[in-house]
Amino acid sequence: MSDQPVAVFDSGLGGLSVVRHLRQRLPGETIVYFGDTARVPYGSKSRRTVATFALEAARFLLQFDPKLLVAACNTASALALDILRNELPIPVIGVVEPGAQAAVRLAQGRPIAVLGTEATVGSGAYVSAIAALAPGQRVVQRACPLFVPLVEEGRGPQDPIVRLAAQEYLVPLRQESVAVAILGCTHYPLLTEVIAEFLGPEVAIIDSGRETSLAVERHLQAAAALSGRSVAGRLRCYVSDNPARFQRIGSRFLAEPIEEVELVEPERYIGVSPCPS
Amino acid sequence: MSDQPVAVFDSGLGGLSVVRHLRQRLPGETIVYFGDTARVPYGSKSRRTVATFALEAARFLLQFDPKLLVAACNTASALALDILRNELPIPVIGVVEPGAQAAVRLAQGRPIAVLGTEATVGSGAYVSAIAALAPGQRVVQRACPLFVPLVEEGRGPQDPIVRLAAQEYLVPLRQESVAVAILGCTHYPLLTEVIAEFLGPEVAIIDSGRETSLAVERHLQAAAALSGRSVAGRLRCYVSDNPARFQRIGSRFLAEPIEEVELVEPERYIGVSPCPS
Repeated sequence: MSDQPVAVFDSGLGGLSVVRHLRQRLPGETIVYFGDTARVPYGSKSRRTVATFALEAARFLLQFDPKLLVAACNTASALALDILRNELPIPVIGVVEPGAQAAVRLAQGRPIAVLGTEATVGSGAYVSAIAALAPGQRVVQRACPLFVPLVEEGRGPQDPIVRLAAQEYLVPLRQESVAVAILGCTHYPLLTEVIAEFLGPEVAIIDSGRETSLAVERHLQAAAALSGRSVAGRLRCYVSDNPARFQRIGSRFLAEPIEEVELVEPERYIGVSPCPS
Repeated sequence: MSDQPVAVFDSGLGGLSVVRHLRQRLPGETIVYFGDTARVPYGSKSRRTVATFALEAARFLLQFDPKLLVAACNTASALALDILRNELPIPVIGVVEPGAQAAVRLAQGRPIAVLGTEATVGSGAYVSAIAALAPGQRVVQRACPLFVPLVEEGRGPQDPIVRLAAQEYLVPLRQESVAVAILGCTHYPLLTEVIAEFLGPEVAIIDSGRETSLAVERHLQAAAALSGRSVAGRLRCYVSDNPARFQRIGSRFLAEPIEEVELVEPERYIGVSPCPS
């Protein structure tokens, strides 16, 4: 048993949709979250920049002595998971592998669709992860870059602009006989209903965040590191900008109020120019 | 006469729509541009963060010994112009004041609409600038947060999602008897056609970037600091991320190919944790 916290980071507030599943599945765990709201979004940025930002977020979280780090950002998982695993002294779980595993299991050889940001799709990370599990498996990718700003603006499945964007992105996928679609961005679960509607009723939807919470549970069980607490674990959030906006919009992702949010000064997470020691 | 360059910065590539007007009006000037593409956008971020980023961009550009700095980003002009003017040893021209002046001149007491990002509208910077010029002038603000991602995705005035967003944002303004609308974001000039269509033919459109190029010309004339060159001035661009994407999408803003773009390492512009000297 271990009462050390689980650390989670994301480019902003989307990772709270992963935290939501973690808290449902592992309610006793303490969670420490860092959202890089000063530099959000990562989805249109380069591998190099995303890796730098992800390492800074991870190193900030190491101060809380976590037993595990979750890269709750699909873009960071797609572009920087190898670097995080090389550089950090604790286990790192990303959202891409759990999502890919669930998709392969459900698809049983039928085509899989990956929906994500420009960077996630461009990286081909889901394609590689699926190919490693099921060589020859057909995968169709579709970047849906407007979904993030639409969700951040508070628009839901009934909004006409959301519906028009979903139609444009998703209806062409119907010709691909897709059996399973992976929500490869932590904002997309808030649009599950409209995504399912335009993909059609025969397509199963995989939420990578939910699958990641299962992967975290399996890892902690195997390492005998689950929390022994029976009371609800604390959730402490740290953000690099705008805690009020994070609290207001983030609670929709978390599906509960966000009680503890603290602004982190740049000096506490930017380590790109260390002073010579 | 002065052959020192004019320095221009923006959160990303939108400021190139201001550079476009500068190059048309003052073709002999050398321009040095910094686009903070690693941390774009600024439009949903706090004053504190925007001011930090703007100062870092400005200090990076000081190495080129410019005669003038243009804050081509509406959000940075709205939130950080006073800080830039206090901290920098050279004149600083933002895009808000020139836009506000042109609007007041054209409106002649009739209502003015300000279209901008969440942060620009929230700052009230255009409202204050207009009130200083024309006390009692009626101003209606409208945040249009989807316009930036729509333009960055390469969508134009005929795109159905652009048209639906423009309709939602702008048609309600018709009830306000607006005479003049300020494009208070450097991305919006690429949607002028559809913005004009939904506001109605009686509304004059002000491009703050164009007005800023006139303000720069007036300033350099008054200071006898115009370039003496008759040949076309050089445009050197520096970005904090993804030069290829900047070149590809930016040329639509500049209306000419972008020839010189260089990636700037974080060590060269992030100065938030200076080593003790």
